[in-house]
Amino acid sequence: MPVGANESQLERMIARLATQRALLDRAAEFIAGIDGPILEIGLGKGRTYSHLRRLFSDREIWAFDYEIHAPAHSRPGPDRILLGDFRESLLNGWTEIGAPPALAHADIGTESRRADAALAQFVGSVIAPRLAPGGILLGDRDMGCAGLTRLETPAVPLPEGIAPWPYYLYRR
Amino acid sequence: MPVGANESQLERMIARLATQRALLDRAAEFIAGIDGPILEIGLGKGRTYSHLRRLFSDREIWAFDYEIHAPAHSRPGPDRILLGDFRESLLNGWTEIGAPPALAHADIGTESRRADAALAQFVGSVIAPRLAPGGILLGDRDMGCAGLTRLETPAVPLPEGIAPWPYYLYRR
Repeated sequence: MPVGANESQLERMIARLATQRALLDRAAEFIAGIDGPILEIGLGKGRTYSHLRRLFSDREIWAFDYEIHAPAHSRPGPDRILLGDFRESLLNGWTEIGAPPALAHADIGTESRRADAALAQFVGSVIAPRLAPGGILLGDRDMGCAGLTRLETPAVPLPEGIAPWPYYLYRR
Repeated sequence: MPVGANESQLERMIARLATQRALLDRAAEFIAGIDGPILEIGLGKGRTYSHLRRLFSDREIWAFDYEIHAPAHSRPGPDRILLGDFRESLLNGWTEIGAPPALAHADIGTESRRADAALAQFVGSVIAPRLAPGGILLGDRDMGCAGLTRLETPAVPLPEGIAPWPYYLYRR
């Protein structure tokens, strides 16, 4: 069932967040045996970071964003935030990060599908060769590229009448 | 079960939005036979407005907020938005609104419970005598006051492991 055109923005947001949570939990299972930090590409309000922090209490989590909107309790310390345009920070941040990430989560969708597609392809192509072997790339746009295998996403239980939200799960 | 202290901000947001949606749908059943416009107190990003618009396609919906953050597709036209401090606009907007509202929804919670409590009591006391008889006041803070009867809220189905979110439902 596609995302319903008749759904309210409230319902779309519920679908999006419930899907994010379920797939982050799934990704945590996939990388249980793989060392490496976590990347949160697009920190936003830090809701997802807050969930990552709980799932991966013993790993470094690095966040990328244009500027900081997340409250202090939902973001990493300043030494783990890479600010600026992803197109630069994703290319330049690797010395600081220092190890191949086990998981990168990229919530980059806007209302402009066309602009998103270009950014998503860029993110995929930068992340794919830098992930730890077996590592996971997860996000709300198609980031498929050489070196990544797309995995099937599990059905996410949603409140009645709310359509599934598309999400993309890849393994290196 | 209380809202879990161990939950992530992502899980808290899922609980909040799913509860909002379920109780707005419930409120719509309560006011099916009652004439009057809808008030959205705290427009925010307009997600709830978008849901109200779908539930009440044939009613006027008035929105109150400090300033406009909602995108154009998720807010009323400018003649149905009352901008400024609720403490003034809620007292001064009634001539424009022109009829007793059948439903007022007030999503006013912030992270400051103490400041919220004062605003919630104010909203309750202003709305209660102005609601249509049998009309509904619904929100995320305790707005109880003379003239309102608190109704039991139905259990809202949430994804596994997410605790219920408190919400307040009153009838005049």
